[in-house]
Amino acid sequence: MTTPSLTLSAIAEALGAAIEGDGSITVRRAVHPSEAEGPGDLALAMDRDLLALLPGSKAVAAVVSEGMELPDGVAGGTLGRIVVKRPRYAMAGLLDLFERPVHAEPGVSPQAYVAPDAVVAPDASIAPFAYIGPRARIGAGAVILPHVTVGADAVIGEGCLLHPGARIGERVEMGARCIIHPNAAVGNDGFSFVTPEPGSVESAKTTGRVVGTNVLIRRVNSIGTVVLGDDVEIGAGATIDRGTVTATRIGNGTKIDNLVQIGHNVQVGTNCMLCGHVGIAGSTEIGDRVVLAGKVGVADHVKIGSDAVVAANSGVGTDIPPKSVWMGYPAVPRTRAFEQYKGLARLKRLFADVAELKKRLTALDGGPVTAEAAERQD
Amino acid sequence: MTTPSLTLSAIAEALGAAIEGDGSITVRRAVHPSEAEGPGDLALAMDRDLLALLPGSKAVAAVVSEGMELPDGVAGGTLGRIVVKRPRYAMAGLLDLFERPVHAEPGVSPQAYVAPDAVVAPDASIAPFAYIGPRARIGAGAVILPHVTVGADAVIGEGCLLHPGARIGERVEMGARCIIHPNAAVGNDGFSFVTPEPGSVESAKTTGRVVGTNVLIRRVNSIGTVVLGDDVEIGAGATIDRGTVTATRIGNGTKIDNLVQIGHNVQVGTNCMLCGHVGIAGSTEIGDRVVLAGKVGVADHVKIGSDAVVAANSGVGTDIPPKSVWMGYPAVPRTRAFEQYKGLARLKRLFADVAELKKRLTALDGGPVTAEAAERQD
Amino acid sequence: MTTPSLTLSAIAEALGAAIEGDGSITVRRAVHPSEAEGPGDLALAMDRDLLALLPGSKAVAAVVSEGMELPDGVAGGTLGRIVVKRPRYAMAGLLDLFERPVHAEPGVSPQAYVAPDAVVAPDASIAPFAYIGPRARIGAGAVILPHVTVGADAVIGEGCLLHPGARIGERVEMGARCIIHPNAAVGNDGFSFVTPEPGSVESAKTTGRVVGTNVLIRRVNSIGTVVLGDDVEIGAGATIDRGTVTATRIGNGTKIDNLVQIGHNVQVGTNCMLCGHVGIAGSTEIGDRVVLAGKVGVADHVKIGSDAVVAANSGVGTDIPPKSVWMGYPAVPRTRAFEQYKGLARLKRLFADVAELKKRLTALDGGPVTAEAAERQD
Repeated sequence: MTTPSLTLSAIAEALGAAIEGDGSITVRRAVHPSEAEGPGDLALAMDRDLLALLPGSKAVAAVVSEGMELPDGVAGGTLGRIVVKRPRYAMAGLLDLFERPVHAEPGVSPQAYVAPDAVVAPDASIAPFAYIGPRARIGAGAVILPHVTVGADAVIGEGCLLHPGARIGERVEMGARCIIHPNAAVGNDGFSFVTPEPGSVESAKTTGRVVGTNVLIRRVNSIGTVVLGDDVEIGAGATIDRGTVTATRIGNGTKIDNLVQIGHNVQVGTNCMLCGHVGIAGSTEIGDRVVLAGKVGVADHVKIGSDAVVAANSGVGTDIPPKSVWMGYPAVPRTRAFEQYKGLARLKRLFADVAELKKRLTALDGGPVTAEAAERQD
Repeated sequence: MTTPSLTLSAIAEALGAAIEGDGSITVRRAVHPSEAEGPGDLALAMDRDLLALLPGSKAVAAVVSEGMELPDGVAGGTLGRIVVKRPRYAMAGLLDLFERPVHAEPGVSPQAYVAPDAVVAPDASIAPFAYIGPRARIGAGAVILPHVTVGADAVIGEGCLLHPGARIGERVEMGARCIIHPNAAVGNDGFSFVTPEPGSVESAKTTGRVVGTNVLIRRVNSIGTVVLGDDVEIGAGATIDRGTVTATRIGNGTKIDNLVQIGHNVQVGTNCMLCGHVGIAGSTEIGDRVVLAGKVGVADHVKIGSDAVVAANSGVGTDIPPKSVWMGYPAVPRTRAFEQYKGLARLKRLFADVAELKKRLTALDGGPVTAEAAERQD
Repeated sequence: MTTPSLTLSAIAEALGAAIEGDGSITVRRAVHPSEAEGPGDLALAMDRDLLALLPGSKAVAAVVSEGMELPDGVAGGTLGRIVVKRPRYAMAGLLDLFERPVHAEPGVSPQAYVAPDAVVAPDASIAPFAYIGPRARIGAGAVILPHVTVGADAVIGEGCLLHPGARIGERVEMGARCIIHPNAAVGNDGFSFVTPEPGSVESAKTTGRVVGTNVLIRRVNSIGTVVLGDDVEIGAGATIDRGTVTATRIGNGTKIDNLVQIGHNVQVGTNCMLCGHVGIAGSTEIGDRVVLAGKVGVADHVKIGSDAVVAANSGVGTDIPPKSVWMGYPAVPRTRAFEQYKGLARLKRLFADVAELKKRLTALDGGPVTAEAAERQD
C-alpha cells in the first residue's frame, strides 16, 4: 500500500517530458487537482478545465500540457510542473508510475482448491476459493483472485491476472500477461442448434417467410476451445464461446470491453478494440486493429477488414473492407449514413415541397391535387 | 419462512385504502387470483383481467382498484375487499407487507474468508464462500451472501444486501441500504487505451477516414474507484468501471437494471433509472431523475439533463436538455423522431408521387421522364 | 479423457449415413482437416472449403456431404468416407458421438456447502465451493460445478448441468436436463419501482412531455420466482428476473443465449431461440418456437406470436403476429422494412429529382424555385 516517492525529474524522464520549477520535489500520489491534500500530491491538469482548478489546489506539483496558458498564480508560483506533449499518452505513463495493483497474497491459499495433477508455477498467487481443475497449468507470476474457476486442461500464461469470478473453460489457452476482468466467462459452449428439416430462420432467410417450424431442436455440442494470444484483455461480464470443432481465437493485444459477446468459431485479429456490449455472431472474422464501438452487432459468417472502424450501435450484416469507417443499421459507409440522416431530417420539408409542386402543376394542367394517381400505381 | 397473519383492516391502514366487507379476515399470502389455495390467501386483482378471475378464485379476500366494476358473484359475495386508489403504488406497499426476504444466517460463516484486518459489524451476516479483503469495512446489518467478493479497502454501508457472485472492487464505497444483485461487478478497471500517435478512431472522428492505425496500444491504468450513494441498486450482471484518477459516481436512490454497463469516470445523479442493457461510455454526465429505457447507448463525454427520458434502443451522441423526451438513432427529440418514422412509412408513396409529377410535367414541357437530369447533378 | 474408438460403420449407422471405402477403420477424434495428426483422426469436411483441405490432411477418414465433388487424391484414395445428407444435422450427431463432457467428480465435495435440510440425489455431483441452500432439492444425475449458488427452496431437475458461477435464486424450479451456463443468474429481483404520483415515464408516454418527476421512488418487491421447463438452456451471463407475484416462465426446449435479459413476469413458450444480448421487458409474452436474433429488444407487455422471427438489432414495441418475419427500429414486417431501407438509399436522388421538377415547373409558371412556399406551410 505504500507508494514510492518519486522526484519530478524522475517522472519527467520516464515520460520524456520537460520540467518547470523545482525538479527535486517528491510526490507520492497522482490526483485530481481538487482532491489534492498537500505535500506528496501531484495534480493532473492536462486539459483546460483541470488547469483552471490549479490555483485553488493543495498539490505541490502538477502535470500540464505543452502550449496551454497557465492561470494566474500558477505561472509565477512555486508549484513544480511537468510539461507533456501528448496528454493522453503521458497519462498512461503517469498511471503506470502511480499504479495501485490489486491485493494478492503470495502462494496458494489453503482455502483454494487445486487439483492434484494441476501444475502451478512456484511464484503464482492463488487466492481463497479459487478452483484450479485437473491438469490445468498456471504460469509464472500469474495471479488468480478469489472465486475464479480454471477448468480442466486450461493453460494460463505467465503474468496473467484473473479477477474475481472469472470463468475459464476447459482446454482454454491464454498467452502471457492477459487480464480477465471480474465475472468474464471464456470458453462457454457455443449457441448452436439444428432442426432435422430446414427451420424457421432458414426459410425466413431464403423466402422471407416462415415455412418450416422448429418443432424439434437438436443441440450441436462444442468440442473446440478458446485460444487467447498475449496481452489480451477480456472485460467484466464478457462472454467468449468456444469453437465447435477447433478454436475461437483472439489475437495478441486485442482488448475486449465489458459485456461483449463473442460467438463460437469467431476469429479476431491483433490489437482490436471491441467496446462495451459489442456482439459478434458465430464464425465471423475480424481483421487486425479493428475498432467496434459500443453496442455494435455483427452477423455471423461476415468479414471485417483490418483497421476498419464501426460507429456505436451499428448493425453489421455484410463484409466491411479494410480501413473503412461504417455506421448505421444496417451499417453502410459513414458518408452514406450521414447522407441518409440528413435526408431523414429534411423529409418533412420534402413532403411539403412535393405537395406544393402538385398544386402548381394542377394550376397548369388541371390534373389531380390528391395522390390518387400515385395510389393506383401501388 | 413463516409469514405473519395480517387482518384486512391492518393492511388497508398500511396502504391508506378502504375496506369493503369483513375487515377482521386474516391473510398470510398475497397471490395471483388463480393461484389462491384457500384460507389465508389474499388475491391481487387490481386490473380488469385479474378482476375477472375473482369469481373462480379460492381467495378469502382481494385487493381491487377504486372505480372498477366488480364481476357478478364478487360484488355481493362474502369476500373481503381492500379498495386502493393508485394500484401500482399500492402494490409496492402490499409487497412490502408480504415480502419474502432472502435467506441469510446471522454472523460470519466459518466457511467465509474475512481478512484479519477487515472490520465487520457485529450484526452483519457473511455467508459461506464470501471473501472480505484486507481493511474492508462491512456496515451494521449488512448481508453478504455466498460467493461475494469484497475487495481490499472497500466500504459497505449499513443495511446493504450483496447477492451471490457480486464483485466489489478495491476502494469501492457504497452508502446505506444498497442492493447489489447477483454477479454484478462494481469497480472494474476502465477500458482505456492510447496509441503513441493519433489512432484510427481519432482520425475517423476528425477526418471521416482511417489514417492512423493502432499498431501500438498502451494501457491506461485506473487508480480511481466507484462511489455509490445510499439506496442504490445495481442489477444482475451489471458492470460499473472505476474512475481513472477520481471516482465514477452513482447518486442516492439511483436504480440500475441488469446487464447495464457504466464506463469509467461517469457521473450519474440521484433517483435515475437505467434499464436493462443500457451502456454509458466514459466520462458522460447524467443528471438527476433521468430515465434511460432498455438498450439505450450513450456516447462518451456527453451530458444528459435532469428529468430527461430516452426511449428504448436509442443511441445518444449529443447532449440532451433537461426534462426532454428523446429517441432514435441517432437520438433526436421525440416529436422529430416520430416525424421521421412517419416520413419513412410514407416514402414509397412519395416516390410514386414524384414519378407521376414528372409524367405530368413532361406532358406540358416535353422534358425528360427519367431521372437523367437529376443524375447529372449527383 | 479417453474417448472410445468407433468404426466408420458404427458412426455411419448412428447418423443414418452411407460409407465409401473401408468401414472397419477406427477413429477416436473428430477434427478440422488441417488439425488431424494421423491414425484415429476423422476429418470433418462437409463444406467446399473444408473438402479442399482433405488432400493435405493426415486424417485416416473423413465425413463429407452427398453430392459434393471430391478433390483429386481423395476420390480415388484409401481414405474412408462417411457421406451425409444434411450436414448441419449430421454435425449434431457426430458431436454427440465425440462429445467432451465437462469434468465432474462423483458425489458431494467436502469443500462444498450443502444446507442440512437440502436434499441431494445420491448420484448428483456437487463440486468444491458450490453452495446448496436450505431445503433446496438436487435431482438425480445433476451436476453442480464449482462456485454455483443454489438458493433456498430451489428445485434442480434430473440431469441438469449447472456451470461455474451460475446463480439460482430462491424458489426457482427447473425441469430435467436444463443447462445453465457460466455466471448466468436466474431468479433475480425484478426491476420495478413506482412513484407516488405518475412519474416522468408515465407522463412522457401519455403526453410526449415530462410533467411528473421521480423525486420519490418506491421499490416494488418481487415475491414470485422463475420456472424453467425441461431441456432449457440459459447462456453465460444471462439474467432472468423472477415474477412479481407469480412466476416468470420459460417453456420446454427453449434456448437462451449469452447476456440475454428477461424481465419479471415474462412468459416464454417452448422451443424458442433467443440470441445474444436479446432483452425482453417485463410481462411480455413470447409464443412457441419464436426466434429473436441477436440484440433484439422487446418492450414490456407486448405479445409475439408463435413461429415469428425477428431480425437482429430490431426494437419491438408492438405485438407481432404468428409466423411473421419482422425487423427494424421500430420493428415492422420485413417487406416494409426493406422498402424503407431502399427508400433511404434513394433519398439523395429524390431530393435532386424534386429540385429539377421545381426548376422545370418554374420555367412554365414563373413560380418560386426555392422552398419558400413550402416553408410557409410548416
